[in-house]
Amino acid sequence: MHRVKVRVAEGALDANDTIARANRADFDRAGVSVVNLMSAPGSGKTSLLERVLALGLGDLRAGILEGDVQGRLAQLHVPVTQLNTGGGFGGECHLDANMVRSALDDIPLDDLDLLIVENVGNLVCPAEFRIGEDARIMVASVAEGADKPLKYPLMFRACELVIVNKVDLLPYVDFDLEHFAHHLEAVHPGVAWMPVSARSGEGVAELAAWLAGVPERARAVAGAGA
Amino acid sequence: MHRVKVRVAEGALDANDTIARANRADFDRAGVSVVNLMSAPGSGKTSLLERVLALGLGDLRAGILEGDVQGRLAQLHVPVTQLNTGGGFGGECHLDANMVRSALDDIPLDDLDLLIVENVGNLVCPAEFRIGEDARIMVASVAEGADKPLKYPLMFRACELVIVNKVDLLPYVDFDLEHFAHHLEAVHPGVAWMPVSARSGEGVAELAAWLAGVPERARAVAGAGA
Repeated sequence: MHRVKVRVAEGALDANDTIARANRADFDRAGVSVVNLMSAPGSGKTSLLERVLALGLGDLRAGILEGDVQGRLAQLHVPVTQLNTGGGFGGECHLDANMVRSALDDIPLDDLDLLIVENVGNLVCPAEFRIGEDARIMVASVAEGADKPLKYPLMFRACELVIVNKVDLLPYVDFDLEHFAHHLEAVHPGVAWMPVSARSGEGVAELAAWLAGVPERARAVAGAGA
Repeated sequence: MHRVKVRVAEGALDANDTIARANRADFDRAGVSVVNLMSAPGSGKTSLLERVLALGLGDLRAGILEGDVQGRLAQLHVPVTQLNTGGGFGGECHLDANMVRSALDDIPLDDLDLLIVENVGNLVCPAEFRIGEDARIMVASVAEGADKPLKYPLMFRACELVIVNKVDLLPYVDFDLEHFAHHLEAVHPGVAWMPVSARSGEGVAELAAWLAGVPERARAVAGAGA
């Protein structure tokens, strides 16, 4: 990487962290936990959200901030706020804290307990930009190959949960779950992961339960830090 | 997008085009045609290259510039030059003309007729950065969904050929080739596309034939412009 670019990138990351902390303070004031959902394009984030929200998250009132280019979630029965509709530069390649901040006025924070942010499909840039979230989920699909943790280690390190999606395709692709787990353990020892299929429904209840536990885990972390 | 960012991006694109023209001049001097291969992560670019190069490209001497993060192509029997091995900022999210330029001394241009550049897996940024290539190929996999041309129109516009890869999975995924073709036609009328499976070998010979025709088509374009 060229020197000037590195300096620009470091300055941008400092500014981003400052704004992420401001977002975090606003989320805390409203009592909202936030999950940042990341993946490659086409790994199935949107279908997964549709399945999970159809199932529900217990007593939690969930909302979506749709940050991916041209999302299709508007027909869900939860509040959906759309960002990044793809004008100009062709859409952003990741969400940053300031983009999320620019949307805060449009999100009914007082009516939510959990905000799920669907990030742009990209396995490089989103890892570098915190948005003020409590937890990050990385969705990988079995169609993408078991080597992905080794190729994009930052993304697989920058998350608290890894979803292995489209496991209904396992009989038809060269994807070895044990290899994937081995590679994942090498780049992010001990991280939680679960096999899921938005198509067959396998693992959707487990994912819903994990999401439903985010606010309590966030409170535990905050309590330990106080 | 924020104003400062837009200005930075426009300046970067101007500089990129200048360097891309310098690359182009060097490729012309060496008599090398260049293909820029783009896709989402996990769509199968690397496996496709392995299949196509095993088949061969007729009389053409091919080489690879491996720009994706941590490539695995080194064992092929063609010259492979590696860029972007993922240090520091977690790897680049696209190749730009200057990154390609920084590798030119390491590529045996005089021994090549066709250089295939494997770009970083990303469906947003690579569309904006020419690298001095003659042709661009966009690889989409049927596992990613038929809506991808609508979600990432710039990428599907910025190419001369679209590969629909992993068609061996068609019986097992909700992907309608006709819908895909319809969406593709909407964003890039008349663009060539072909169904391929790096796994079964379907379409690999057609892709090899298309690649083998790149130098002649490039000469025809140059002749028409002279």
